[in-house]
Amino acid sequence: MAEKVVLGIDIGGTNTAFGLIGQKSDILFQESIPTESKKPADDLFRRLFSKIKEVREIKNGELQIAGVGIGVPNGNYYSGMVENPPNLSWGDVNLIDLVQQEINLPVVVTNDANAAALGEMYYGIAKNMKDFLLITLGTGLGSGIVVNGRVVYGHDGYAGEMGHMTAVRDGRSCSCGRRGCLETYASASGLRRTVIDLLMDSSRSSILRTLSDDQLTSKKIYEAAEKGDKLALDAFEFTGKILGRKLADSIAYLSPEAIIFSGGLAEAGDYILKPVRFYMEKNLLTIYKNKVKLLQSGLSAGKSAILGAAALIWNELRQKGEDEES
Amino acid sequence: MAEKVVLGIDIGGTNTAFGLIGQKSDILFQESIPTESKKPADDLFRRLFSKIKEVREIKNGELQIAGVGIGVPNGNYYSGMVENPPNLSWGDVNLIDLVQQEINLPVVVTNDANAAALGEMYYGIAKNMKDFLLITLGTGLGSGIVVNGRVVYGHDGYAGEMGHMTAVRDGRSCSCGRRGCLETYASASGLRRTVIDLLMDSSRSSILRTLSDDQLTSKKIYEAAEKGDKLALDAFEFTGKILGRKLADSIAYLSPEAIIFSGGLAEAGDYILKPVRFYMEKNLLTIYKNKVKLLQSGLSAGKSAILGAAALIWNELRQKGEDEES
Repeated sequence: MAEKVVLGIDIGGTNTAFGLIGQKSDILFQESIPTESKKPADDLFRRLFSKIKEVREIKNGELQIAGVGIGVPNGNYYSGMVENPPNLSWGDVNLIDLVQQEINLPVVVTNDANAAALGEMYYGIAKNMKDFLLITLGTGLGSGIVVNGRVVYGHDGYAGEMGHMTAVRDGRSCSCGRRGCLETYASASGLRRTVIDLLMDSSRSSILRTLSDDQLTSKKIYEAAEKGDKLALDAFEFTGKILGRKLADSIAYLSPEAIIFSGGLAEAGDYILKPVRFYMEKNLLTIYKNKVKLLQSGLSAGKSAILGAAALIWNELRQKGEDEES
Repeated sequence: MAEKVVLGIDIGGTNTAFGLIGQKSDILFQESIPTESKKPADDLFRRLFSKIKEVREIKNGELQIAGVGIGVPNGNYYSGMVENPPNLSWGDVNLIDLVQQEINLPVVVTNDANAAALGEMYYGIAKNMKDFLLITLGTGLGSGIVVNGRVVYGHDGYAGEMGHMTAVRDGRSCSCGRRGCLETYASASGLRRTVIDLLMDSSRSSILRTLSDDQLTSKKIYEAAEKGDKLALDAFEFTGKILGRKLADSIAYLSPEAIIFSGGLAEAGDYILKPVRFYMEKNLLTIYKNKVKLLQSGLSAGKSAILGAAALIWNELRQKGEDEES
């Protein structure tokens, strides 16, 4: 009998990763192609499916694709629409329709952070959890909220935009047009802004002072912290303080078992997690204190995105199976 | 055949209301007895069940009680425990055990705001909704969060404490021991504190200046607003501003279809809802704007609490039925 797999697709501004994945996280095939973000969406999918066709021909009958899961910025779970995705010149496009023109299978779409949350639940550190938050600390801050074993999509598919909660009233300007959003502080770009603020506000010495604007990345800030650079350490401390305080609010809503961090900035480990934990605990209502685990994603950066997309469709197929049986 | 009903119990600091309720909100019997908060919990339940016994004897075979739902401050859904409830000298007590000593039936316990949310879903204004927030604006601020048709309890049963989110950093002191909690601003007592602040900060004339501390209730503030008292109107405006801003954050988490307000302060209607709506919309991310309904509970104050408790157990019996069928 042919092995059941799903096609997981993670669409980024630069590259699109995809793979065929079994139920137990065995990635049977994995590839990445340029997204070519200036071209329309159907160009990307045409190239992607010609690759998939090759693999299926080679495996000839050994694989049965059961469905397609797609993680994409602004992807809407209910409609399959992607509306004006940042960094992609797509306009509004329905990815379910687009994929089903190529292959007549169940397709599920959501944003990258929701897919990452499901990836942790199926293949990662949240395997036995039913209530947790997944926070991606990349260029921005993304979030996937899981309640009772299901991703929270809200009534319209747009729940989980924790990056755009107000962290500082009348604070830093955000690309969304508002001010003080959490992701202007707690993200790789937020950390960079904090370092620039600290460099401007004083003449304190710092390794980072010698870098040009281009060179000043979150990786460089991490390396400076590793060398004991006080200003870099202060920048991490401030970032963790803003994030920890807001997470205390999150817990008052949702009382999750854990908060899981993924993405580039999460790899800074205790430089970021230690102040997050301190300021979170400090601001918690007593009933929540010392209960919520702060964890780093256990999935490797290269695999987590397509595993998330795969988990998205496995999860859907499982839920459908349950509904049909009942 | 005997009619199926449930026993709904709402325990307050002063009175305990209870009733026998059918599936369609028909209250077949309703009564209220003093809670006598200084006595232990089993004293209350003994008195309550002797009343229930009387009713069952009168109705002799006409009624079949299918289960018991209890709304109580600090009630934990998972364990049935009530731990150190405010205003009740109970210590820690398990209400499921206590009730099942009297009557061997399914018993479900939760806090009053969660029960109120279920009451709105079964009998009230949220009948066809699957994602909404219920906010009770009484002495404090309580909240029940419904996602995908189910109350969010979190991993330990303590989710939904929106009253203790930080609304103002280092703001007003709260009974929980922290500062700046939302309920120190957005509640009947918060409104009172705002009026006192406004009276102290200036010598502006106001009807409210003639009242003693005892007399200054949220009802009096409402009446002053009705008479056009500028200071009272400003107090409502400020209360709505603080609440509206925080609700913009709530929507970024949960993207609910509606936010429903109940409790004494909600009866002030547009005095409170108008500024809430204005500041909420002003602070929303574009994708959420002009989508979320702000509604007042349609259930009468006298009935909503026991209808909530009844909905709690009807909901549980329905879910159990579904699980058994599947």
